[in-house]
Amino acid sequence: MRKLTWLLYSLCLIFLTSFTMNMQKKKIVFFGDSITEAAVKAGGYILQIGELATKDKVSDRYDFVGAGISGNKVYDLYLRLEKDVLSKNPDVVIIFIGVNDVWHKRTHGTGTDADKFEQFYTAIIKKLQEKNCKVILCTPAAIGEKTDSSNELDGDVNKYSNIIRRLAKTNSLPLIDLRKAFLDYNNQHNQENKESGILTSDGVHLNAKGNQFVAAEMWKVLKSL
Amino acid sequence: MRKLTWLLYSLCLIFLTSFTMNMQKKKIVFFGDSITEAAVKAGGYILQIGELATKDKVSDRYDFVGAGISGNKVYDLYLRLEKDVLSKNPDVVIIFIGVNDVWHKRTHGTGTDADKFEQFYTAIIKKLQEKNCKVILCTPAAIGEKTDSSNELDGDVNKYSNIIRRLAKTNSLPLIDLRKAFLDYNNQHNQENKESGILTSDGVHLNAKGNQFVAAEMWKVLKSL
Amino acid sequence: MRKLTWLLYSLCLIFLTSFTMNMQKKKIVFFGDSITEAAVKAGGYILQIGELATKDKVSDRYDFVGAGISGNKVYDLYLRLEKDVLSKNPDVVIIFIGVNDVWHKRTHGTGTDADKFEQFYTAIIKKLQEKNCKVILCTPAAIGEKTDSSNELDGDVNKYSNIIRRLAKTNSLPLIDLRKAFLDYNNQHNQENKESGILTSDGVHLNAKGNQFVAAEMWKVLKSL
Amino acid sequence: MRKLTWLLYSLCLIFLTSFTMNMQKKKIVFFGDSITEAAVKAGGYILQIGELATKDKVSDRYDFVGAGISGNKVYDLYLRLEKDVLSKNPDVVIIFIGVNDVWHKRTHGTGTDADKFEQFYTAIIKKLQEKNCKVILCTPAAIGEKTDSSNELDGDVNKYSNIIRRLAKTNSLPLIDLRKAFLDYNNQHNQENKESGILTSDGVHLNAKGNQFVAAEMWKVLKSL
Repeated sequence: MRKLTWLLYSLCLIFLTSFTMNMQKKKIVFFGDSITEAAVKAGGYILQIGELATKDKVSDRYDFVGAGISGNKVYDLYLRLEKDVLSKNPDVVIIFIGVNDVWHKRTHGTGTDADKFEQFYTAIIKKLQEKNCKVILCTPAAIGEKTDSSNELDGDVNKYSNIIRRLAKTNSLPLIDLRKAFLDYNNQHNQENKESGILTSDGVHLNAKGNQFVAAEMWKVLKSL
Repeated sequence: MRKLTWLLYSLCLIFLTSFTMNMQKKKIVFFGDSITEAAVKAGGYILQIGELATKDKVSDRYDFVGAGISGNKVYDLYLRLEKDVLSKNPDVVIIFIGVNDVWHKRTHGTGTDADKFEQFYTAIIKKLQEKNCKVILCTPAAIGEKTDSSNELDGDVNKYSNIIRRLAKTNSLPLIDLRKAFLDYNNQHNQENKESGILTSDGVHLNAKGNQFVAAEMWKVLKSL
Repeated sequence: MRKLTWLLYSLCLIFLTSFTMNMQKKKIVFFGDSITEAAVKAGGYILQIGELATKDKVSDRYDFVGAGISGNKVYDLYLRLEKDVLSKNPDVVIIFIGVNDVWHKRTHGTGTDADKFEQFYTAIIKKLQEKNCKVILCTPAAIGEKTDSSNELDGDVNKYSNIIRRLAKTNSLPLIDLRKAFLDYNNQHNQENKESGILTSDGVHLNAKGNQFVAAEMWKVLKSL
Repeated sequence: MRKLTWLLYSLCLIFLTSFTMNMQKKKIVFFGDSITEAAVKAGGYILQIGELATKDKVSDRYDFVGAGISGNKVYDLYLRLEKDVLSKNPDVVIIFIGVNDVWHKRTHGTGTDADKFEQFYTAIIKKLQEKNCKVILCTPAAIGEKTDSSNELDGDVNKYSNIIRRLAKTNSLPLIDLRKAFLDYNNQHNQENKESGILTSDGVHLNAKGNQFVAAEMWKVLKSL
């Protein structure tokens, strides 16, 4: 009889512990475009963040969820915010958007006006904050890795990065300034002024090194939350 | 004493009548771009609709309100729907948008993707219907008045008009098919295949005749509601 | 001795005949973009024209030469006219260009202004005529095969086709109006208003049927020269 | 009688001297876009170069001729080279082009591909050199004067400037690097990171100070020829 009691007691304890831990797990949603869509695949930056968390022995405290769709611009995020993010009750949302808002001006004629970019970005932040999500902003890393400011769309990537920096400041939100981090890294490691191949495979999408780099930059901010 | 009573009685009657009539006045909001922004100025199509209502002796039943802003695309309407339309408690909203969604692809690189055009348009319709507004749709009339389908953006104007026609059908909403009406009119009155000067001053913005024409097309639908 | 004389005589005859025939062979150069680049591959329209010539038992009178390069616009043709066409001493040059002049406005921001299109086209015609080449013009067939004028770039394709039609008229040159021919064919065979799959694989590049169709249209004009 | 002889002798001398000097006058043609079109108007940089020459007491050695047309891109220069430049038998031609090759990608969809820019630029240089003209190249100064590389088209302006720098080097031609000069000046005098108003009125077209600045930069090179 005593054994049974003990067994029941143990089972309850295990159940409660795991339940509590699960309750305490922070759900982090990565909300973005093709760069983030690829981030849940082998070598992707979201998986790498998971490994960093494991190394730091805190992986049981986080639930990392990718919500990236190829070709997305800021208003695509806005349109699918409810369905793809809020419905998952995230604790933290990392917004990583902007490349296509600039790029599609050139390739489709359907980029995003700078003022509308800010308006939709702001609307996303507000909706997330209303649901008590922590919001983290990222600047778009690169469209081309040349270091002499002669990538065709450098000016516009800088312009939209400035908007995001301002939004982070105005709303007192953490900023992961990937644009700056990539430029700094390339200034050191891209002496030949190559268009791609340092942190990206094609100037935009992350190669193995790039995924590691982004994971490290994001983890620095995430683990300190 | 009798006279005073009679006077008071009359005043009450007048007040009640006017109040009731005012209550019954339908508020019609015209929601659009520069074409609609100009429509409240002398000769503009909204003023002309007012005159058509006067001619039909029903002007006291309507309150016509312009809500057009130059350069607007469908997502601009979406962003200012609350502030510029819903806040006015309209009974009817005429949506007249689309020219810039196509045109800005060419002139700014920031037109609207066809699928996003449909999504934002649908979102506007839903929000208006939730507030019990009647919604009327219009196709974009013209970017260029040539009749041989050789205006640079004719194909795209037709494409986006088709989207609006489909939305009207799917949502069982009245459609004012200005695109079709303009083409029909030009086929008759633009024998020289001119780019502008028939119903528009510059291929897009309405001249005097164009304002009259649009007013007539809209009034046909409005008075039958 | 007689045998030798006879042999020599025969050899001379053969040589002269072949030389004469070769001299009389008309060299036809097809000058264009990716559609023409593909035309020398299996099933391509230039090979098919060769087969039509064989059927009509006149294949020994023609030398068909492809000079198409993917992505070319009118000024690419201009820049490589000397090297790729004049250097081959053609009798006839068929110019088949225009799709990218329109398309690249949308996809690269580097389409060709209508007036420059006409200027470079005219310059090509002049240079060819100075070398006594016969010049045949073609209109661009299609960017999208929908029949209700709602292919995104229909207006501009029509506009540039009109320029080419005018150039043919002004310079009294034969015109192969592929634009018109494709529209007529699609009006009959594309009842479902599909974007591609009738004469093209993707709205632009010719499928098997499209190559046959273009070959037939061109051969009609070529054999009557 | 002696007086008359003396007078005639003097007149001859004056005539011959002035004739000879006129013969020795260097004809400098400024070949470009709207910036150069405006340069022959009051305050314009070509007039200012004239004044600098006067100050240096060498104005009688130069004939400064403007050949700028608004909206021109490199291939416009190419198309009107014969008519507007070579027909004037210039000694020196200053090519100042590139802004519209970049800008029109955004505003008209008809900018110039980088490789075609180089090809047409090279063709112009060759044609001028065949006529024994000295050729001087200029980089495009600015589309926006912000100093933090966030003018929308900064990357592309830098890219096309690099092409011109390479062409100057390859062809051993003098280069007036206005792009660099403007950036240097703005780094000093545009502390507020303004989009325009320093050397330009609108980010592109020169204000009074800008015309002076360009005149000085060009005169430095011209007088040393």
